[in-house]
Amino acid sequence: MTDMPIETDVAIIGAGPTGLFAAFQCAMLRLRCVLIDVLPEVGGQCVALYPEKPIYDIPACPAVEGAQLIANLEQQIAPFDIPRLLKHRIESLSGHRGAFTLGTDKGTTVTAKAVIIAAGAGAFGPNRPPLEGLEAFEESGAVQYYVRRKADFENKRIVIAGGGDSALDWALALKDKAEKLYLVHRRDRFRGAPESLRLLDDAVAAGQIEKVVPYQLHALHGANGALESVEVVDLDGATRHLEADTLLPFFGLATDLGPIARWGMDTIRSTVPVTPSTCETSMPGVFAIGDVATYPGKLKLILQGFSEGAMAAHSIYPIVNPDQALHFEYSTSKGVPTV
Amino acid sequence: MTDMPIETDVAIIGAGPTGLFAAFQCAMLRLRCVLIDVLPEVGGQCVALYPEKPIYDIPACPAVEGAQLIANLEQQIAPFDIPRLLKHRIESLSGHRGAFTLGTDKGTTVTAKAVIIAAGAGAFGPNRPPLEGLEAFEESGAVQYYVRRKADFENKRIVIAGGGDSALDWALALKDKAEKLYLVHRRDRFRGAPESLRLLDDAVAAGQIEKVVPYQLHALHGANGALESVEVVDLDGATRHLEADTLLPFFGLATDLGPIARWGMDTIRSTVPVTPSTCETSMPGVFAIGDVATYPGKLKLILQGFSEGAMAAHSIYPIVNPDQALHFEYSTSKGVPTV
Repeated sequence: MTDMPIETDVAIIGAGPTGLFAAFQCAMLRLRCVLIDVLPEVGGQCVALYPEKPIYDIPACPAVEGAQLIANLEQQIAPFDIPRLLKHRIESLSGHRGAFTLGTDKGTTVTAKAVIIAAGAGAFGPNRPPLEGLEAFEESGAVQYYVRRKADFENKRIVIAGGGDSALDWALALKDKAEKLYLVHRRDRFRGAPESLRLLDDAVAAGQIEKVVPYQLHALHGANGALESVEVVDLDGATRHLEADTLLPFFGLATDLGPIARWGMDTIRSTVPVTPSTCETSMPGVFAIGDVATYPGKLKLILQGFSEGAMAAHSIYPIVNPDQALHFEYSTSKGVPTV
Repeated sequence: MTDMPIETDVAIIGAGPTGLFAAFQCAMLRLRCVLIDVLPEVGGQCVALYPEKPIYDIPACPAVEGAQLIANLEQQIAPFDIPRLLKHRIESLSGHRGAFTLGTDKGTTVTAKAVIIAAGAGAFGPNRPPLEGLEAFEESGAVQYYVRRKADFENKRIVIAGGGDSALDWALALKDKAEKLYLVHRRDRFRGAPESLRLLDDAVAAGQIEKVVPYQLHALHGANGALESVEVVDLDGATRHLEADTLLPFFGLATDLGPIARWGMDTIRSTVPVTPSTCETSMPGVFAIGDVATYPGKLKLILQGFSEGAMAAHSIYPIVNPDQALHFEYSTSKGVPTV
C-alpha cells in the first residue's frame, strides 16, 4: 500500500515520553510535527513494558506510574492535535537539512524539514535465560519478562532473577503482594540506586524478600506450562529448589538501533552521539534525544530526554523559519496552548 | 545571633523549583543537603511573584500554576525530610572542593562538601516606571507589579504596560475577568511565544483586549491612591487618557547576583557560566543550575533547571563519595524513596 506523502516540519521518530514531549515543544514553537512509532500506541516502554511501575524522578510528578505519565503527556499535547503515524517503522531517511524524505515499512512517505530521533532503546526485547523447556512456561505466563498488571501476582510464590534495577525495583514493588518472594542473583552485590539498596536490606531483614545469592538459574520444573519450582545453582555446583508459581527474569533488554544504523549518521553501539545543547547528530538537520542520544556526561533519565526535546525543538526553529528570530523566554511566562 | 554550624554534604542556595528538585536528586543519591533561601518560604519566584500563573511547559504537568508546581515538588521531597534554612542570605563562601564554609546574614555557618547555586534571577525586584506620584498608587494597590490573586481583578478596568511575555501572558490570563483591558506598549511588536502572539491577535479581534500602541506611560491621574486614568503618550507627543482602576507595569525584573558576585567565580552579568553536562562553575565543587547558570545554547526554562539539577547532583556524588562508583540507571527503574 502506498499512501499520499505526509508533509510536515518535523518528523519525530518514536512516541515514547521523550518523543511526546518533543512534539509539545515543537507545537509551542508552532512547528508542525508528526509522531511516528512502530508500536500500535504511543508511550513506548512506559506503556509497553511497565505501565504500572512507579517512576519517582519526574519533576513535580511524585511516584507516577508509566501509563499515567503517558496519559499526562497526552493531555499536554491534546490541544495541538498532533498527527500520529503508528504501527509504522521508518526504514529509510534521505535528503538534507530542510528537505528530508522518510520511508516507512508500510510504503508511506513523510517529508520533513528536520528529524528528531527519539527511539529510546530502539527495537527492544528481553534477554531470555538459556533454560531447557523455557518456551512452554513463557506461553503459559509462568515466566514473564514484564509486569503489566501487579494484581496478577497477588499471593503468588515468585522468583525474581537479576541483579540490576529492574530486579531490585520489582522485588520491592511486589514484596507486599507475593506469598513468597525470592531474589536470585549470581553475585552478592546488587546494582541499584543507593536508596533502593537500603530498602532491599530492610525488606530482607523483615523477611519480606529472601535473597538467594550467589546463585544462578539452572532449570525449571513443572508440567504443561505450570511451574512447580525453579532450580538454582551456586558457583560450586550446589543446587537449591525454590518452590514457585512464577519466574520473572530481569536480565536487561536486547537493544538494536535497527534501520537507524544504516542512515549514515555516526553511531556508538546502540546510541547516536549528539552535540550537547543542540542535540544535533552528525547529519545536519537530524537530531537525537532521550535514551538513544549520547554525549559526554549523559544521564539516562526521562527528565534529560524532556530537556533534550526542548533543546532540539529550539534548534530546529531556525531550520523551519530561516528568516525569523526566535524569542527565547522563561518557561514561566511562555505562551498558552490553544484549547 | 550565632547558631551552631550546620554540617551537610551539599548546600543548595535557592529554594525555588530548581533548588527543590536538586534537593530531590541529591536525596535520591543519598547525599545530605540543606535548602537555603532568603525568602521566608520555599518556591522562589513561582510563589513570590506568580502563584496563580499557569505554567504550560513542565513535562507531564499541563497548565500547572506556580504555587501548585511548588506543592508538587514539596510532596516529592517530603519523604526525605530535607532541612531548610529560610530567611537566610548566604553572604560568604570560602574553602575548596570537599570542604566549603558558608556564612549567612544572620551569623549562621554552614559547612558542605559541595555547593549548588540555584539562585534564579538572584535578588529580584520589579523595574518601576518613572511616574510622578507613583508611590501613593503603589501603596493603595492601584499599581501592582505581580498578580498574586487573579480574583482581585474581577470586573476591573485594567491597563497592562509592557511588550514582553509577562505583559502578554497576563493580558491573556485576565482578559475574561476584566471589564476593560488595555495593553500599552511603546512598539507595535510584542515579544512572546508564537502561540501567545496568535492568541493576542484573536483576543484583539474579539474585542477582549485593546492594544494601545505605540504608546508609553506618561502620567497617573486620581486622588488618595484611587486611580482614575492612565495617561499615555505616543512618539509624536499625542496623549490618550485610559480610564482605569489598576495599572500593571511589566517592565521586567531588576536582577542582581548579590553576594555571589564576590565569591570569586567567573560571572557574566547576572549569570554564572558553567560547564554543560556537569554544571560546575569555575570554582571546583561549586555548581550552578537554573536561570542563574549559563552556557552556550542555554534555554531559560524551568525544565532545563530540573535537568541541570540532576546533572549537578550526579557530578557531586563522587565529591561526597570519593571511593564509591555511582551506578547510573534509567529513571524508569530508579530507586523508591523512603515513605
